[in-house]
Amino acid sequence: MPENLTPLNAIGEFALINRLQAGLTLRQPGSVLGIGDDAAIIRPTAGMEQVMTTDLLVEGIHFDLSFCPLRHLGYKAVAVNVSDIAAMNALPTQLVVALSVGPRFTVEAVEELYAGMRLACEAYNVDLVGGDTTASRGGLTLAVTVLGEVAAGQAARRSGGKPTDLLCVSGDLGGAFMGLQVLEREKQAFLADPETQPELANYEYVVQRQLRPEARLDIVHELRELGVRPTSMIDVSDGLASEVLHLCAASGTGARVFSEFVPLANPTLEAAAEFNLDPITCALNGGEDYELLFTVPVTDHEKIKNHPDITILGHLTDKADGTNLITKAGQPVPLKAQGWTSF
Amino acid sequence: MPENLTPLNAIGEFALINRLQAGLTLRQPGSVLGIGDDAAIIRPTAGMEQVMTTDLLVEGIHFDLSFCPLRHLGYKAVAVNVSDIAAMNALPTQLVVALSVGPRFTVEAVEELYAGMRLACEAYNVDLVGGDTTASRGGLTLAVTVLGEVAAGQAARRSGGKPTDLLCVSGDLGGAFMGLQVLEREKQAFLADPETQPELANYEYVVQRQLRPEARLDIVHELRELGVRPTSMIDVSDGLASEVLHLCAASGTGARVFSEFVPLANPTLEAAAEFNLDPITCALNGGEDYELLFTVPVTDHEKIKNHPDITILGHLTDKADGTNLITKAGQPVPLKAQGWTSF
Repeated sequence: MPENLTPLNAIGEFALINRLQAGLTLRQPGSVLGIGDDAAIIRPTAGMEQVMTTDLLVEGIHFDLSFCPLRHLGYKAVAVNVSDIAAMNALPTQLVVALSVGPRFTVEAVEELYAGMRLACEAYNVDLVGGDTTASRGGLTLAVTVLGEVAAGQAARRSGGKPTDLLCVSGDLGGAFMGLQVLEREKQAFLADPETQPELANYEYVVQRQLRPEARLDIVHELRELGVRPTSMIDVSDGLASEVLHLCAASGTGARVFSEFVPLANPTLEAAAEFNLDPITCALNGGEDYELLFTVPVTDHEKIKNHPDITILGHLTDKADGTNLITKAGQPVPLKAQGWTSF
Repeated sequence: MPENLTPLNAIGEFALINRLQAGLTLRQPGSVLGIGDDAAIIRPTAGMEQVMTTDLLVEGIHFDLSFCPLRHLGYKAVAVNVSDIAAMNALPTQLVVALSVGPRFTVEAVEELYAGMRLACEAYNVDLVGGDTTASRGGLTLAVTVLGEVAAGQAARRSGGKPTDLLCVSGDLGGAFMGLQVLEREKQAFLADPETQPELANYEYVVQRQLRPEARLDIVHELRELGVRPTSMIDVSDGLASEVLHLCAASGTGARVFSEFVPLANPTLEAAAEFNLDPITCALNGGEDYELLFTVPVTDHEKIKNHPDITILGHLTDKADGTNLITKAGQPVPLKAQGWTSF
């Protein structure tokens, strides 16, 4: 360990908590008491319901520290949880972090991770109010739990979609998957020859999609401004196909997704071409785009059709019609979930 | 793997979630939507504040599956978090579980773990409303986050103690530590000679204290019934000495803890004698008793002095008087934190 770094066992758990706590501020009016007691104290807003979600990121399964900087990992851990809050049509308010780190981690490494989480807390206006930091025999594990608020009865469940509802998605898809392909190729090149410099300059967009995804809270705000309430919503973490199937299963509907409308960014198309991959397949089965997939009543078509960052992919149908991708030639092809199987 | 057990990768994440979800029921009126969407939906009770806490249990650090049955582990993971809620003078309402399991775990093993969590949810009247289950490269990691409620302004912080307040503790101390000593001795005997049968019959109480601690929600209820509001409170997870120091540091006070009043159960005394350990030291520095340490105004002395399960250990003092254990001979000895240092 270089001399300027501090092993975790040199300062102990309580001193570490004090150091991590130092940079935190509470922004939410409902955050009565943050880190430092047996539990945080929260004052919920009258008339609001809450949403609560937890997500675990495990080293070697969800991230590879050989190409994921700790600061980005901290940011991503918060973003992917906030994405679940956004997918309920809610806004995040407080979060807690449970962290276990192996013996090779230093105080400075944990501070980098927290710096990324603090950045994300600022970006999403959410307060880090509690945590647990402990040792592990292995790598890094990070469990973030976020609480959010939404006006009573306004939460968007997966189950609210109706046949004829328009099926919409924010942003573009497949980029995070292509970013992972690029990063893994560069890692292999580096392992083969440690003198190699990684060539990432041409892949900035897709690498950023993989390493630093953003939760689409902006879409939640904009739909409210447009007066559109999503009838159902889910975030795209496991690939479009898997999420359409989840949404249809919960809503008891089928769907028609037009392949020509699946939004793909140019850098994603270019990277897919280079890797000889079908970009539609990357969008359908690649994961971690963290866009929002949602349905709106067909009567809201006018309100959203010109939104620059929302694409209408197709529409829900009766369940009996199945859940199909419609090819450019007009052929229906049943969608299959090939999302992450982490086991 | 025996034929009647199912490897996790044979069923996949979504099927596993469905199986785990099957046995869950929602009891709390505020639990609007449980597992199965991007997030749970919770309706907070008007006029209440919430408390929120998270705790991580890591295999090889916090538990040893060679002597901790998975069902007990599941129960304990919930209990230790509920203990933090109790330490705020609150009652638990909802919880979420983030779980990562290595390749050697089976579906049946994860179901056992969940069975233990379900038992604890029943015992503490709390709803399991969400989770994340994923693979790991190593062992088992379990992060539980619990939400609780308390009437606005009635939460007990660590910082509310005043000089002259009586310092009280529930139950008895040092038992969980002695249980761990017994279990580790039997494990060593087993490793030396796998034919050995573990000899636990004489140690039932202390082993139970280690493997299946209970959160003292009963004390929270009873103090309310007695009309006693703790001025400060903390749960005893790292040993009495460490917790007294935390409470005094947060309250800006000193304390006098009379060693003759430290509550020790007979089985703890017997086990300590057998292991040649000072039982007071076990209470001060052993961890995981999960009793409640709290202060009450001296005017409440009459209300609690006859409670069979609350012991008055001493009282808070001015900060300048220090934080001392008073020996039977009347000598003050400064308390030192020797709690868990997990790094």
